[in-house]
Amino acid sequence: MTTTTIGIFGGGQLGRMMAQAALPLNIKCTFFEAKTDCPAAALGPVISTEANNGLQDFIASADVFSLEFENTPLADVDVLIQNKSLFPPRQALATAQNRLLEKALFDELNIPVAAYRAVDSLASLKQAVVDLGLPIVLKTATGGYDGKGQFVLREADQIEQAWAELGPAKSLIAESFVQFSREVSIIAVRGQDGEVRTWDLAENHHHHGILSHSIVPAPDSQDLQPVAQDYITRLLHHLNYVGVLTLELFVTEQGLYANEMAPRVHNSGHWSIEGAVCSQFENHIRAVAGLPLGSTQTIRPTVMVNIIGQYPKKEDVLALSCAHLHLYDKSERAGRKIGHITLMPLDSNELTSLCIQLARILPEPLALTEEMQINV
Amino acid sequence: MTTTTIGIFGGGQLGRMMAQAALPLNIKCTFFEAKTDCPAAALGPVISTEANNGLQDFIASADVFSLEFENTPLADVDVLIQNKSLFPPRQALATAQNRLLEKALFDELNIPVAAYRAVDSLASLKQAVVDLGLPIVLKTATGGYDGKGQFVLREADQIEQAWAELGPAKSLIAESFVQFSREVSIIAVRGQDGEVRTWDLAENHHHHGILSHSIVPAPDSQDLQPVAQDYITRLLHHLNYVGVLTLELFVTEQGLYANEMAPRVHNSGHWSIEGAVCSQFENHIRAVAGLPLGSTQTIRPTVMVNIIGQYPKKEDVLALSCAHLHLYDKSERAGRKIGHITLMPLDSNELTSLCIQLARILPEPLALTEEMQINV
Repeated sequence: MTTTTIGIFGGGQLGRMMAQAALPLNIKCTFFEAKTDCPAAALGPVISTEANNGLQDFIASADVFSLEFENTPLADVDVLIQNKSLFPPRQALATAQNRLLEKALFDELNIPVAAYRAVDSLASLKQAVVDLGLPIVLKTATGGYDGKGQFVLREADQIEQAWAELGPAKSLIAESFVQFSREVSIIAVRGQDGEVRTWDLAENHHHHGILSHSIVPAPDSQDLQPVAQDYITRLLHHLNYVGVLTLELFVTEQGLYANEMAPRVHNSGHWSIEGAVCSQFENHIRAVAGLPLGSTQTIRPTVMVNIIGQYPKKEDVLALSCAHLHLYDKSERAGRKIGHITLMPLDSNELTSLCIQLARILPEPLALTEEMQINV
Repeated sequence: MTTTTIGIFGGGQLGRMMAQAALPLNIKCTFFEAKTDCPAAALGPVISTEANNGLQDFIASADVFSLEFENTPLADVDVLIQNKSLFPPRQALATAQNRLLEKALFDELNIPVAAYRAVDSLASLKQAVVDLGLPIVLKTATGGYDGKGQFVLREADQIEQAWAELGPAKSLIAESFVQFSREVSIIAVRGQDGEVRTWDLAENHHHHGILSHSIVPAPDSQDLQPVAQDYITRLLHHLNYVGVLTLELFVTEQGLYANEMAPRVHNSGHWSIEGAVCSQFENHIRAVAGLPLGSTQTIRPTVMVNIIGQYPKKEDVLALSCAHLHLYDKSERAGRKIGHITLMPLDSNELTSLCIQLARILPEPLALTEEMQINV
């Protein structure tokens, strides 16, 4: 049977961009999302998670299923997979939803991670501080993103306060601080036949815990690329994964350390819409639909810049040479991802000046500065 | 006022691809089309041309208007422009709908065309044969496309038959045959501020009157490009044009001869979705919305191949390296344009072998052959 409809858990910008990539392949998408006026609504029917029989209607709406939201409820997934297929598989989702399971998997596959301890009591927190030394980051094992559900423990006298704040979550993880020079991410796709293709590493710059911009290929990453590819390939094969997987990594003096994985297309891969022969979105759709994968080769060095909180003037952005604007049809709100811009000049030497021009145009320039220098 | 909705006369694949380009700019489209399940329906509301008050509802549905269909009725346009703006302007549409007006404009702007005569009686047809010599092509001044509404007059004893067939149309044009080595097209866009940008010439190969494939940049076209750019720029400025205009040209020993213009995005420009920095569709939308134009530079040599009548197997096409598949969600029917494929290998030397592989995959390989050789 040819897949014609893919049901997607979530209907935000990731679902929207998946559906945009699916459209020219005559593949339709449906979405399962609380609000039916979500960003993906322009491209297919949205079944509300709050409607009566919503889950059953969603399951009936498509041939095969995927997700854009790593916190997709496992309870929903368990109902779905009684009758239909989900890509990526349940195990990948369950692992990514629990930091302890995720670290255990990294350990099992010999992917280096910062030292960590499971914490489920004040006593085990105290022991973790003894084992790991300070500072540590205490996180809930499940839930939390963009810096929420975390406590940075710098002094022993904060132990009680940290436990008071996060203890109610019951399952916590204490992680050593990693001394890293920069953060990168590797994105790869695995087809239903087990073929794996990997995009170039992205170097990610954050601002108050939110991704500001990604530079691809990550500068000076020739030696890192094969290592990162090896790590993500181990994960993909072990999980019998189908679709796009993202692995965030720290660059340290001891090499790459895994931070976390996301079982989905990723903000640090948005550059690939224009910057790669086949984007993360199209390859994800191809994989889920059982089609051959496209080339992940980089066309030209690219910088992807997030639009957070407030829109710039369209005409200012589009007046920049070789700027591609992607708006998500979301209302403005502080800290919210509402669009992105891909800079991909024919002459890569212009990347720095384009970023500086963007820093002047964007209401929230984030980590873009007048002094920045991009060397790709 | 920021444009948020563009109303498009027509809802076929051109409207579909316009709306795809508009989406990331947060610009929505509405469509005016007989059948509401047309290819563009996936991307916006379709108002049926056959509905009561259809035209009024369509006019109310958007801020500014454009078209994908050069035979958009002028009567509808005349109602529209009482209250709203249409880009391209009415005069461009009226000129393109009438071969005699079109040739007169080419003459006025010193754009070479084949010798022609207006024909409105048997006597004037006979005079045209005397003036132009045989063979000639007799065409209706209005209507007709893809070789319909035409009569090729090779012998004097066909004059009565030709008149019998086409005479009822009343206004005809008799054109000399042009001895040409190949057909090319130039596509350009003009913004509301009068800025003009031009894509590289496409070399177009036909099969039974339907476009088979386009090669961009047209081989050996360095000397032709500035001439074609000059011609289309004259047209754009003279018509105070806004949006994308296409000019089809013959390459002859005497230089370029204009064949006809299309006041819209064009099949020979579909390559630009992947092959140019900014596609014909996005730049058309930008122009109509009053936004700055994007770069029309070619990223890499590209061959665009039409899918006519019957779909190939998706997996066969997507297995080709650097092939981009665009399906229009239309049912199969002989002679119908139902999709296209863009070939854009990182190494342009692979274009020939990719075309030959496609010739084996496509149910209708059209002008693709095992012996073809592409030299870009």
